[in-house]
Amino acid sequence: MRADWRVEFTGRILLLGCGAVSRCLQPLLLRHVAMNFGELTIMDRVDSRTGAESALARGARFVRHRLTRQNYPHTLARELGPGDVLINLTWDVDSRDLLWWCHRNGVRYLDTSLETWASEGDSTTTAADRTTYRRHGKLYELGARLDPAGPTAVVEHGANPGLVSHLTKRALHDVATAVLADRDAGSGPAVDDDGALESALADGDHARIAMTTGTRAIHISERDTQRGEIPKDVDEFVNTWSVKGFYEEATAPAELGWGTHERELPPLAVTHETGPRNQIYLARTGMSTWVRSWVPSTGPMLGMMISHGETFTISDGLTVRDPSGLPIYRPTVHFAYLPSDAALASLHEFRMRGYRTQSRQRIVDDEIVAGSDELGVLLLGHGRNGWWTGTSLDIHEARSLVPGQNATTLQVAASALGALRWMLLHPNRGLRVPDDLDHEEVLAAAEPYLGECPSVPTGWTPFDGADDRLDAPVRSSDEDDPWQFGNVLVR
Amino acid sequence: MRADWRVEFTGRILLLGCGAVSRCLQPLLLRHVAMNFGELTIMDRVDSRTGAESALARGARFVRHRLTRQNYPHTLARELGPGDVLINLTWDVDSRDLLWWCHRNGVRYLDTSLETWASEGDSTTTAADRTTYRRHGKLYELGARLDPAGPTAVVEHGANPGLVSHLTKRALHDVATAVLADRDAGSGPAVDDDGALESALADGDHARIAMTTGTRAIHISERDTQRGEIPKDVDEFVNTWSVKGFYEEATAPAELGWGTHERELPPLAVTHETGPRNQIYLARTGMSTWVRSWVPSTGPMLGMMISHGETFTISDGLTVRDPSGLPIYRPTVHFAYLPSDAALASLHEFRMRGYRTQSRQRIVDDEIVAGSDELGVLLLGHGRNGWWTGTSLDIHEARSLVPGQNATTLQVAASALGALRWMLLHPNRGLRVPDDLDHEEVLAAAEPYLGECPSVPTGWTPFDGADDRLDAPVRSSDEDDPWQFGNVLVR
Repeated sequence: MRADWRVEFTGRILLLGCGAVSRCLQPLLLRHVAMNFGELTIMDRVDSRTGAESALARGARFVRHRLTRQNYPHTLARELGPGDVLINLTWDVDSRDLLWWCHRNGVRYLDTSLETWASEGDSTTTAADRTTYRRHGKLYELGARLDPAGPTAVVEHGANPGLVSHLTKRALHDVATAVLADRDAGSGPAVDDDGALESALADGDHARIAMTTGTRAIHISERDTQRGEIPKDVDEFVNTWSVKGFYEEATAPAELGWGTHERELPPLAVTHETGPRNQIYLARTGMSTWVRSWVPSTGPMLGMMISHGETFTISDGLTVRDPSGLPIYRPTVHFAYLPSDAALASLHEFRMRGYRTQSRQRIVDDEIVAGSDELGVLLLGHGRNGWWTGTSLDIHEARSLVPGQNATTLQVAASALGALRWMLLHPNRGLRVPDDLDHEEVLAAAEPYLGECPSVPTGWTPFDGADDRLDAPVRSSDEDDPWQFGNVLVR
Repeated sequence: MRADWRVEFTGRILLLGCGAVSRCLQPLLLRHVAMNFGELTIMDRVDSRTGAESALARGARFVRHRLTRQNYPHTLARELGPGDVLINLTWDVDSRDLLWWCHRNGVRYLDTSLETWASEGDSTTTAADRTTYRRHGKLYELGARLDPAGPTAVVEHGANPGLVSHLTKRALHDVATAVLADRDAGSGPAVDDDGALESALADGDHARIAMTTGTRAIHISERDTQRGEIPKDVDEFVNTWSVKGFYEEATAPAELGWGTHERELPPLAVTHETGPRNQIYLARTGMSTWVRSWVPSTGPMLGMMISHGETFTISDGLTVRDPSGLPIYRPTVHFAYLPSDAALASLHEFRMRGYRTQSRQRIVDDEIVAGSDELGVLLLGHGRNGWWTGTSLDIHEARSLVPGQNATTLQVAASALGALRWMLLHPNRGLRVPDDLDHEEVLAAAEPYLGECPSVPTGWTPFDGADDRLDAPVRSSDEDDPWQFGNVLVR
């Protein structure tokens, strides 16, 4: 796809929220969507129109309005009708309520994160309520009531969740291709699969590719090295993306898709009794749960196992079941997130304040002097050992692509743009999670904004970068299988 | 004591090392020691004379020379004789070898940290070898061979170890005074001690003051908020003090003085079989062992339980024994260190690199834009609950006191200066740890450089700032006693 691709659209777009991602997405809409921008409305609870200047200059309208559980049907009915598009980039408006309204009113819906009304995400909820498992369970309940040929609704389509589901499929394809090439060249481990891998590859059956290649674990591995010349102050949270979003997910229970190869539940593990049971969570926060992982630029890393929607959809989507419906294969899937240094220090301060939010919050942009956001999927345990597929976007390249933005925000906006294009071209596909979209089509639209996109093998195992003299040694029971989660979890 | 106090000295001073602390101490020597500065020699393994300009301008001599196990007797004999002073501010020269040489040659000795020859501190040592318990055990063996009226040698007299031993005594005095005042005013808990507290206070018997006040735990609690406008780079360690020193102590086993009130050893605890047995260590690094603590400016904090010499000397010095020599009272004593944000991120990167040191290292000075180093002792469990006594030195005040220095370095240098003054006034007291000096005399000399020196009560307990919903709850067995170490250790 050409970097200057355009898609025609004749309806209205309501863009909810004018925060960092919205400000980054707006110039992309102006570039890639051929529409009358008089039909674009940007709505925010505060007067943030200075963040929407380029769109307003092209005719878009800014509306200051706070959407609530009470007023949203009236507000949306005033702004949108059949054939129109709602893009929800807020953090305090309920995704499912909007999605349901859109479905009944012929409106396409897109968001980057499943949210609830702000007042309902408060601290009185239980740990189980704050899992993505629960959120996705409710989403699936809603989905069962929707017409599968109804107006397209794409949920959780940012960088992650979102882009990483597509990167997983690309990685599986690349691993399978490499393994088969090794076989044909007579190198690498023997592939004794009676043609199952070639057949799965030809069918685009990613669950069977994952199973047949022996992929045991998938990390969403991300290291953000963006750093600024204005240091974090005491009692200030500094982040490269939404501070409110980070507070929420950092304090959610550590959560992961649980592979069929795992022998032993980790300490504090809780399993689910209903639903697909593809995930477990730990009775501790994601921000205090560290795992070993790897990124191409700097090698071994330690990241936080923050709860994230993609672990649900990827581990669910890659589950292979026997004819009776019992799972016979599923990879372990989890996030390993090393945020910027300033965010790391901010989280530590947040925790020691008894999880009271800092009184000042800042999303860095122009003050960044160097760094990149490296985000990808790390497939482990297959015939090529490890394989990382992702995006590595430098701050300077991000700025050259969209002035004033940072790398993290652009990765999210680029992914939302790719999903929007897919939605406009496929307007009647009902409710979709990222894993349900055509991955190469979405990636091709987003890639002009993703910087380098390596897809590379690695010999890393969790035993690398761990010092037995200084860290508690790995459990001897897992020494024969590096891909047991017990080897990845830092104790 | 007047801020412009001066002490006369007629001999020679050899200052080993021209790193950050040495550069800060030199202008203090020029100000406070009345001597012929032609007799001051600054020796460093590299040509760092640009860091010694003010001293060189006053007549001091710079010698580039690397002291080794082989050449040190010859070098020292050339530079020093009876009545002279050796100040060792290196990190790679063995304290005990120098101390022993000084003792036999009538030379006074001062250092801020017990070090060994660089080649002997390598990674082949066992965890037990890297404990301060072992280092102090060897020091005591050496001390037994020394004449108690020989030339004074003061070891480990920086900020901590060093200053904090004196602050502990001041805090004990203030707690006792407050508790007795409460009694006399008829407020506060009853003191039913048959006059033991008043008697201990009158005697200056700090161990008995600690026991009689019911002091159960002493934290060396430090938060460094100094922050600069040049962010930490990838593969760079940024610190407010010696990077090499921090590498070494951060990877040493977590270690603490073990109180007689403790009911249960923490996980991975190792006890000692020989010596005073006042300490235990954990089979994990200090940098990965977090404890709850408190500082006056920002309240509850989480710090690392880094191994530090003062935990040995304070817990040993405050032990009360029965006539048979069995300990009947000892407080738990440990460090709780929250370094600068840049150092926190540097340590995390260091760990995930498999404890390979970063290729670049930087000690911040002029690039600091704000922050302070708040360092004190937190006495817990007595009749006033908690009491913090320490120094809070802002970067701007530090610079106004000694241009070009940061707060951390000045706290160390001020303490060394106080010890030097004591040593010059008391030249024949043999080997001394900080706890053996007159605390108010040393504090008075150092205080002009320590900024604010609060000595204040606090109602903090380790249950504050812990969120049971998000952190693993405290052990129910310890709920009746907040001062069990199990409540302080973060799990």
